[in-house]
Amino acid sequence: MTTRNFRQMLEAQWDKENFVCVGLDPNVGLIPTMERIGWTVSLSKTISCFNEEIIEATKDLVCAYKPNVAFYEQYGRDGWQILRNTILSIRSIAPEVPVILDAKRADIGNTNLGYVQSAFDDLGADAITVHPYLGKEAMQPFLDRVDRGVIVLCRTSNPGAGEFQDLLVDGRPLYQVVAEQVASQWNSHGNCALVVGATYPEELAQVRAIVGDMPILIPGIGAQGGDLEAAVKAGRDGDGCGIVINSSRGIIHASFGPDFAEVARRETIKLRDGINQYRLA
Amino acid sequence: MTTRNFRQMLEAQWDKENFVCVGLDPNVGLIPTMERIGWTVSLSKTISCFNEEIIEATKDLVCAYKPNVAFYEQYGRDGWQILRNTILSIRSIAPEVPVILDAKRADIGNTNLGYVQSAFDDLGADAITVHPYLGKEAMQPFLDRVDRGVIVLCRTSNPGAGEFQDLLVDGRPLYQVVAEQVASQWNSHGNCALVVGATYPEELAQVRAIVGDMPILIPGIGAQGGDLEAAVKAGRDGDGCGIVINSSRGIIHASFGPDFAEVARRETIKLRDGINQYRLA
Repeated sequence: MTTRNFRQMLEAQWDKENFVCVGLDPNVGLIPTMERIGWTVSLSKTISCFNEEIIEATKDLVCAYKPNVAFYEQYGRDGWQILRNTILSIRSIAPEVPVILDAKRADIGNTNLGYVQSAFDDLGADAITVHPYLGKEAMQPFLDRVDRGVIVLCRTSNPGAGEFQDLLVDGRPLYQVVAEQVASQWNSHGNCALVVGATYPEELAQVRAIVGDMPILIPGIGAQGGDLEAAVKAGRDGDGCGIVINSSRGIIHASFGPDFAEVARRETIKLRDGINQYRLA
Repeated sequence: MTTRNFRQMLEAQWDKENFVCVGLDPNVGLIPTMERIGWTVSLSKTISCFNEEIIEATKDLVCAYKPNVAFYEQYGRDGWQILRNTILSIRSIAPEVPVILDAKRADIGNTNLGYVQSAFDDLGADAITVHPYLGKEAMQPFLDRVDRGVIVLCRTSNPGAGEFQDLLVDGRPLYQVVAEQVASQWNSHGNCALVVGATYPEELAQVRAIVGDMPILIPGIGAQGGDLEAAVKAGRDGDGCGIVINSSRGIIHASFGPDFAEVARRETIKLRDGINQYRLA
């Protein structure tokens, strides 16, 4: 078996014109009940099987899967097992698609080794999202895993993102300083990426201008209101690549019925086509 | 059973002159082996029993216990169970001592509900540490739990903390802006606190001047090199209170032998006496 390398896996998917990232953030209340689709009643089985069907239905269309840990951690140790099962499913059903663990972790120094072991070794993720606030020195244990991606929060998609991220530092907003530091100081192994919300296309264009061809994970399309054309045109690099466009609810919960996987595939194709239409336009 | 309220529980401990927080960050390699103290071989039992003995030995001397999630999450679902057992032990052995979950979480909006449920409902913690970067609007699900503490990273104890935290915004470093925003905007329910490292006493004094009597969690004493006298004098409020001085390794792993609990008690008393000596000086 060859070594998994996040950046290489991502680029291989981009070569296939796959730029959609499916957010595996299941809301158990929106999953068709077992009466309707014949699953067992256990929470673990329900969520694990739901995720598995979504992965099976979208595996040839996506550049990444992104489970958000909060959706699993809420169920305690059972949730942790579901998350692990889900990542195992991805690695079995779609072995060429990288897994981004949306964990938004960051502690100091060696304490991060616990999160590194959890994300990369126990769970088997290919990349993790992290907060920038503690600085590069604190994040070294993540950065040292050169085959794994370290995706740093830069300009987040939420309405109140600007409270600190827009503060001016020598005339430039803080999120641009974060982008510059990550591009110039954190990325010596070439394994860094950034998160910039689709809800802020102007800020996204500014970040792209700073970071060259660094991958940018772009959440906020769909339910959060981000405009696809604006996000793709602002986020793409000089080759029309470099973007990982996430959709969660808009794909996995597009149907509440037993046809959810089929509808998820249809929505993924629609988003994929939209991205490719704007990407090279 | 009365409702647990983080701020009230903390103040009740301060009234007993308890300002030490014990960081329950066990390193399994430093725990006496089962041959020496008669424990079973399982990891879960070893760590759970170790923590229980530390809690039993220090319960009348401390204002809080602070397990750091990374030390548990590294063991996957088993780690999650050990963490839960440890918090249950605290609530059983030391029911009046609040539990700070050092999780350093923060996601956007409703996604945080997963972390809120995990920390406060599933695990039963009284407070949680969080990153400020996403802004107050994102953190509302934490802030809305008025009986629980929301402890915001302000100036962290690591050597590279200044990369972003010291950037000047209108002439003031970012960490001071965070302190001001938390004190003036985030704290409408009176359930906020801040993290400022003992390794930066001047910055700690600046933060204290900004936040009045808001509790400040102060890590970095001992192994990280923070000076106790400087930290206490810089961190105390006008009444000589307001501080939660954390020590982890310096207490729980002060002895690698079967006398670890006894030595932990001795080290806790030493730290407690030191704090009280400088607190009112």
